[in-house]
Order: sequence, then C-alpha cells, then structure tokens
Amino acid sequence: MTAKTRWLNHIKWDEHGLVPVIAQEATTNDVLMFAWMNREALARTVELGQAVYWSRSRKKLWHKGEESGHFQQVHEIRLDCDEDVVLLKVTQVGDIACHTGRHSCFFQKFEGDESGDWVEVDPVIKDPEAIYKK
Amino acid sequence: MTAKTRWLNHIKWDEHGLVPVIAQEATTNDVLMFAWMNREALARTVELGQAVYWSRSRKKLWHKGEESGHFQQVHEIRLDCDEDVVLLKVTQVGDIACHTGRHSCFFQKFEGDESGDWVEVDPVIKDPEAIYKK
Repeated sequence: MTAKTRWLNHIKWDEHGLVPVIAQEATTNDVLMFAWMNREALARTVELGQAVYWSRSRKKLWHKGEESGHFQQVHEIRLDCDEDVVLLKVTQVGDIACHTGRHSCFFQKFEGDESGDWVEVDPVIKDPEAIYKK
Repeated sequence: MTAKTRWLNHIKWDEHGLVPVIAQEATTNDVLMFAWMNREALARTVELGQAVYWSRSRKKLWHKGEESGHFQQVHEIRLDCDEDVVLLKVTQVGDIACHTGRHSCFFQKFEGDESGDWVEVDPVIKDPEAIYKK
C-alpha cells in the first residue's frame, strides 16, 4: 500500500466498489445532487479539483459538466463516521446541477399527510435542450 | 394502488427495497448524516414527523434517537429528479446527529494532494458513553 492510495483504502467501498457521494454548494450549503464514485473517480476528483463521478447507467467515469459545461469545483471533501459516504463542498458552475435545468436535483417536495404527494417546487433555470444541444 | 401509497410508489426503490436518505439541518443546511429507508420507514417518518430509517446492519426499523434521545423533527421531505434519493430537512434534537457525539457524521476532511489523508476536524460535543449509557 503506497501513501498515494492509503486514503482511498480508508473508505469502505460497497460490493460494487462504489461509495455514495453528496454534492453540496459551498456558499449556500444547498444539497445539489447525489451520485456515486469508484476509486478512480475519487482519485480523479482530487487530482482535477472538479467532481468526477461513476455513472452506474453508462458504466463509465462521468466528469460532471463534460456535456453541459456545468462543472463542479471541489473545495472540500468529507467522509462520514462509517467511512462509507463522501460529501463534496463545491462551486456549481452555471448554478445548475440538475439535468432538468434546475439548481438542485431535489426539486420535488412532499406535501400533505399520509395521503399526500410530491410537488415540483423549484423552477427550471435553463431549458435542458439549450444546455445539452451543441 | 390506493392514494395512501401512490407517493411511495413514485420512488424507485433499489433491489433491496431501499432508498438512500440525506438528513440536512433545516436552519444551517448542514448535512448531518446519511442513511437508508424502506417503504415502511418513510411511511412512519411521514406519520410521526420524526425520522425513521432502516438499519441495514440490524435489519430493522430505526427510529433515530430511540436510544440517544437525539430525535430528528422532520420539516420537509424532498425527492430528487431520478426519484431514487430522499432529502430530509430536520431539526436535530441535542444538536448531535452522529453516534460519535458530533454534530454531523461528516467530520473527517480530506487534506493535502493525491498523497493526502483524512483528518478529524469537528469536535465531539458529548461523550458517546454519556449519550448511550442509561
């Protein structure tokens, strides 16, 4: 084990070699999104100073912003007490973290009692078609 | 499908019937902890207005605070764009969310470059022995 990998080995990677990651806006503390990283993604994140996740659907590294331009500058990386969840404090380029064109992915709010429902409460800042069309 | 369960069916539960949950302090927006819920845990959370998680290690419902007294009053429940992550906005009773006696579970900060390491940066507010000893 080299010094370069010791901090990576400190993490309890799950059975798929992944760890859940919460991205939080450094200035407002807003929770922007949730994703996953493998060892390579986290190592690349530290190296670049920008968030690199593991896309479980596409099964490849996902440098957040590579298509949208909405990169995440990473200011701080935290690990929880059980060493199995990572928290990033980031600056969100474009103020848009969500692929729907919203600031945060958590735009659906539960309203009502046990028979309530989810309501979209946050606005779309930019049409996704304008974000992803080259 | 009854109205009572429609909002629960809106969530994409994973292969274990669980969803990841982020607990965030309502006033400061601090991320306090990360845990999991099954359908029953989320239904109980809505019913009680307090966070009830699913303990994967103990394989049972875990009413946060049942042993420590550090309950979480739930003010808001959010769902992400993919409908597979839940965010709670809570008031943390006792200001301590972590079983180590700290405010937040995310008290280990990565310091340095690629050969850096994790450093404990947040204080223990209360000795866990004093929290859990009856």
